[in-house]
Amino acid sequence: MHILVINSGSSSLKYQLIDMAGDRVMASGLIERIGEDMGSITQKSNPDKWPDARSVEHRPIPDHKAAMGLMVEKLIGEEWGVIGSLTDIDAVGHRVVQGGESFSSPVLVDAAVVETIRANVPLAPLHAANLVGIEAALELFPGTPNVTVFDTEFHQTMPPKAFLYPVPMDLYEELRIRKYGFHGTSHKYVTREAAKFLGKPVDGIDLITAHLGNGCSMAAVKNGRCADTTMGLTPLAGLMMGTRSGDVDPALFPFIARHKKMSVTEVDALLNKQSGLLGVCGSSDMRDVHAAREKGNETAQLAFEMFAYRVKARIGAYLAVLGRADAVVFTAGIGENDAFVRAEACAGLEGLGIKLSPERNESREPGVRRISADDSPVAVLVVPTNEELEIAHATKALVEA
Amino acid sequence: MHILVINSGSSSLKYQLIDMAGDRVMASGLIERIGEDMGSITQKSNPDKWPDARSVEHRPIPDHKAAMGLMVEKLIGEEWGVIGSLTDIDAVGHRVVQGGESFSSPVLVDAAVVETIRANVPLAPLHAANLVGIEAALELFPGTPNVTVFDTEFHQTMPPKAFLYPVPMDLYEELRIRKYGFHGTSHKYVTREAAKFLGKPVDGIDLITAHLGNGCSMAAVKNGRCADTTMGLTPLAGLMMGTRSGDVDPALFPFIARHKKMSVTEVDALLNKQSGLLGVCGSSDMRDVHAAREKGNETAQLAFEMFAYRVKARIGAYLAVLGRADAVVFTAGIGENDAFVRAEACAGLEGLGIKLSPERNESREPGVRRISADDSPVAVLVVPTNEELEIAHATKALVEA
Repeated sequence: MHILVINSGSSSLKYQLIDMAGDRVMASGLIERIGEDMGSITQKSNPDKWPDARSVEHRPIPDHKAAMGLMVEKLIGEEWGVIGSLTDIDAVGHRVVQGGESFSSPVLVDAAVVETIRANVPLAPLHAANLVGIEAALELFPGTPNVTVFDTEFHQTMPPKAFLYPVPMDLYEELRIRKYGFHGTSHKYVTREAAKFLGKPVDGIDLITAHLGNGCSMAAVKNGRCADTTMGLTPLAGLMMGTRSGDVDPALFPFIARHKKMSVTEVDALLNKQSGLLGVCGSSDMRDVHAAREKGNETAQLAFEMFAYRVKARIGAYLAVLGRADAVVFTAGIGENDAFVRAEACAGLEGLGIKLSPERNESREPGVRRISADDSPVAVLVVPTNEELEIAHATKALVEA
Repeated sequence: MHILVINSGSSSLKYQLIDMAGDRVMASGLIERIGEDMGSITQKSNPDKWPDARSVEHRPIPDHKAAMGLMVEKLIGEEWGVIGSLTDIDAVGHRVVQGGESFSSPVLVDAAVVETIRANVPLAPLHAANLVGIEAALELFPGTPNVTVFDTEFHQTMPPKAFLYPVPMDLYEELRIRKYGFHGTSHKYVTREAAKFLGKPVDGIDLITAHLGNGCSMAAVKNGRCADTTMGLTPLAGLMMGTRSGDVDPALFPFIARHKKMSVTEVDALLNKQSGLLGVCGSSDMRDVHAAREKGNETAQLAFEMFAYRVKARIGAYLAVLGRADAVVFTAGIGENDAFVRAEACAGLEGLGIKLSPERNESREPGVRRISADDSPVAVLVVPTNEELEIAHATKALVEA
């Protein structure tokens, strides 16, 4: 079975074609600057055999339908193609950011599903792009099952005390203002992988999962189900990120608006795009932050400390929420690769049962691995995430059901 | 030595006259609705002897100077007076909410101090009232030393990683946007009392202090000094409170403004005055919340659970920040009197070393007391706060210095 996984952004399209026999990536691609004067498509084919080979083409790509057509051309093309025709794609799995309260599991797309996703667009206007991708795929693959997997669905198990905000209840009743959480596909994937690694059933495992990438979020996982998470109504909430502030005094909003004479939209953009690591030290990429730290840059050092400090505090908060944990799990770009952040976030937590092994933390073995000391009551794991594979598996399960 | 402690609000004035020999409250009073058509003054005299006796008078009180004149009349009056004349007041101590970064300890008031306090008004516009009180007192007690004690000063020891927000640094450099924290006088007072009770030096004690009253805040205290606190640039941040939301996704601000067509000022008021317990269940007073819960009101139950859940998560966060704690300290109206909230906030924290004794938690002994089980590695204490006494002691220390 070949499953095509699609992640459609406002001006981009990411895709992976996966052979479910062996979970093998047959091709992966990125189409950028859709709708601009000049766009691009980059594809890797059989990356397990040729990890460094890629095709890059620049050409205008007017819309998502054109982008998807281009993707198909590549996938079946003579030079870089990996399948013979469109009919070799057995199902399409779509990443959808906001499922609202409507979806707590993946669903087969039909007209009603499309309308329900459309009804959730006001909750996350930027992600109307997901819908555009689905509609383009329905047109292009008319006979093929399409499945949507939501970034919010793993978090739908949060209890009301965690997902409700202490604001007038009519804001929830009328506008569905509540905590949804995001990165759910990743938190779910690493939860299952961590359970496997620790030899425990998923529904008997308590974890604190930390997805630290461009966006960052953590989740408290009780018996394999999400009990709380750091992102909220939007992906702005919670941890400090590359360009997002995470949680701040909500009164910063009117204070900045008043003193800087900025509009609500401008303050919103400031907190989403000019804050986080970027706001503190001028670099949004933690690798650049480390490079600057090494040269003695004090604001880079500060940005690093602020970032790790917020992860550490949240580990404690979620330990309290859970009462206990089998493991703390680090994943995504920073979580998988940044030994400095992991060490700083876990420093001084021995009294809470969390003790890193410096050697294991600094080794760069691939795959799931333990980085805690043997005598650490709570394990600390690095689990590489794979959202595309999680979507592919969910899609396969629904198609075969 | 007699010290008059003054807490001047925008339309109110609270005062206590304290005999420093024995820390005895000679008189305490509350003047309300200053500047309105009809105001009132309520005074208790020698409340240690006559706890239930009070004088209440209704009359117009045009401004804070008039209010202070009325207070003096009461304090030296024939019927309810406790001193012979103004000169029996040896010093005046003022509560000031926002000391900004200018004050990390109490100061004797002079013209320069007044100007510095004035310069901090943009940080907390509502608390310009504190300044009005100081100026009225300087006029009324020309030869008497006046001392200001700041609600922020205890928190000035926070490290940058805790007090800076992950927003563009020029917002800190230009506008001093950072976490200040409030209730510092209370956190400081209960820190010293807890150290005394536990027989440890203040500078060697690690505490998590929870001031839960109308406003709510917690502090992580390392070696007797504040390492972090929940309130921020303003008292809106952090825990859920009577009418304040505490921390929410900062994106709630633009989302509510857009969907409810509200101005920045209106959303600000909504989060400060119509949220918290009030927003969730319609009552801002936890005693009413409990009464409603007992009658089976589900939103009241929810409000209670949301409130305690946020305290619990913060206990965990601050345990991680501190690495260890000698005690968790509950204080202020809810913290001192509400066994339900304490029990719910500490439930399930045995794995983190926190184990309440249900009997001790429910007993209502006065004074500092331990409510944890004997085998709880982290003590849990109830410490009645006394901000007026803390201000009086600070005032005395400066006057005698």
